[in-house]
Amino acid sequence: MSSTLEADAESVLRLVTPSLDLKRHKGQAGKIAVIGGCREYTGAPYFAAISALKIGADLSHVFCTKDAAPVIKSYSPELIVHPVLEESYTISHFSEEESRKVQERVVAEVDKWMERFDCLVIGPGLGRDPFLLECVSKIMLLAKKFNVPFVVDGDGLFLVTNSIGLLSSYPLAVLTPNVNEYKRLVLKVLNCEVDEQNAEDQLRSLANQIGGVTILRKGRSDLISNGEIVKSVSIYGSPRRCGGQGDILSGSVAVFLSWAQQLISGHESLLENPAILGCIAASGLLRKAASLAFAKHKRSTLTSDIIECLGASLEDICPAS
Amino acid sequence: MSSTLEADAESVLRLVTPSLDLKRHKGQAGKIAVIGGCREYTGAPYFAAISALKIGADLSHVFCTKDAAPVIKSYSPELIVHPVLEESYTISHFSEEESRKVQERVVAEVDKWMERFDCLVIGPGLGRDPFLLECVSKIMLLAKKFNVPFVVDGDGLFLVTNSIGLLSSYPLAVLTPNVNEYKRLVLKVLNCEVDEQNAEDQLRSLANQIGGVTILRKGRSDLISNGEIVKSVSIYGSPRRCGGQGDILSGSVAVFLSWAQQLISGHESLLENPAILGCIAASGLLRKAASLAFAKHKRSTLTSDIIECLGASLEDICPAS
Repeated sequence: MSSTLEADAESVLRLVTPSLDLKRHKGQAGKIAVIGGCREYTGAPYFAAISALKIGADLSHVFCTKDAAPVIKSYSPELIVHPVLEESYTISHFSEEESRKVQERVVAEVDKWMERFDCLVIGPGLGRDPFLLECVSKIMLLAKKFNVPFVVDGDGLFLVTNSIGLLSSYPLAVLTPNVNEYKRLVLKVLNCEVDEQNAEDQLRSLANQIGGVTILRKGRSDLISNGEIVKSVSIYGSPRRCGGQGDILSGSVAVFLSWAQQLISGHESLLENPAILGCIAASGLLRKAASLAFAKHKRSTLTSDIIECLGASLEDICPAS
Repeated sequence: MSSTLEADAESVLRLVTPSLDLKRHKGQAGKIAVIGGCREYTGAPYFAAISALKIGADLSHVFCTKDAAPVIKSYSPELIVHPVLEESYTISHFSEEESRKVQERVVAEVDKWMERFDCLVIGPGLGRDPFLLECVSKIMLLAKKFNVPFVVDGDGLFLVTNSIGLLSSYPLAVLTPNVNEYKRLVLKVLNCEVDEQNAEDQLRSLANQIGGVTILRKGRSDLISNGEIVKSVSIYGSPRRCGGQGDILSGSVAVFLSWAQQLISGHESLLENPAILGCIAASGLLRKAASLAFAKHKRSTLTSDIIECLGASLEDICPAS
């Protein structure tokens, strides 16, 4: 791997992380919302949302189904959890007209909050219920209307892989596929197999083809491209592959991306891409936290242990004062 | 800021905090009730109620909706949680007569407890459901009837800003607005913008105009007035602005206010105002706990971390023995 490809993740972390200041008020360090959590999955949206807070965001919301809400709420009083999404079983006896009304209500519930959010994370624990995914595709269009960036992971990637037009010409979208999700994306968009020999070029083509979204391809090295530049992050890391680490990553990308956007809007001369910066910072921080957690917990390292190491890892690289 | 304006918060904390005594029995150190918690919000009432206990109150109740109760209960077995409030969706198919009965039942459920409480906290996680807020305005009138002091925060401030008469001539009411809530109060009551140049005078006028309530205006310095005197608290603090810190404050004001009331009723010569003393003590303690938590957790400091530091902070200023 060429040395120019490898990003200096620690420097990017120091660049994008805002200095803390007594003059700031609640919300200025970031307001994140996770769209996910259904009858089946509740851990993933929690991991994404709590990671955002542990990195330094001020407010973290979750929009999930009625069944998932009490459970996600019970994981932590720090999250604001909205029980607004609906799965097909709710509308199974409804007429088309009634179903449409339910969908409108779901989207309206998210709509009234949308403007306040700095970034969304769409997909952790979303599940694949067709009615729910239809509502979420409407929520994506809403985010695009308000120019709110979003990170797509997990079942959100299932949705966009099958409806790639949802992402078209939206450079504020970030995809964070793992090996299998990447395989499906490449097959769908480039109509071919993953080519490890030309991984960078293929990633660049893929991001380009989708219309300039940013893709963080997770792997032994994380590879990041927006269709123009390609960067990698290979530092630190852990050999533990417990489920949930991707959710930490998606929540982290959301925070760092919104910080990078703030930074760049304040310094027009900085020509860096906020989505690329956000991905590099999140990847570097997760890898450091995972290595710290692994040093401590070894084989029994869980995702919650890694989340507990986010603060110390960030402090180590980028002290708060 | 003039030095006479700045309160000696540590001295006030030592003054109002009662000495512990083996002869005292359960309840004497304070019985607090939080009115808040709905389908959407459960963290805020928990933070307020648990903070009251962590400072030294004996009993902490929460009156919330049916949906919120199991979640708030799950955060801690220390709280007594009453699932008695109702939102509009309960009564959506009810006649006016039936709705009125539901409202009467809600108020009666609180009524039978009211006399036992030393102070209420009205608003954390209350939401803005019109039917629920109507019930809460009845609960406020009930508190006034029994001369139970109350602290109004969050959506409780939304309620009283729109029905300012609820507070009229009730010097046992304390409002704890943040930047935006203060802006709305000033606009509504004084019919003007916030004037930072004359912040103290404007706060005094506002408290006066509402009828001698006490207002704790949260900010970089907290500013406190009852329409006569104005005090500030600027010591300690943390640059972290995670959501939920206001709930710690409202729960703390309730405890210190009720302690100050006890103290003053035992020493008629003390002419201090218990609401002012309660605000100064609560502001000082929260700021110290926040600075301790920040020293430990830096950017990843969450509201729960600050609550964990309430005890050590109080012990540091005012040792239990």
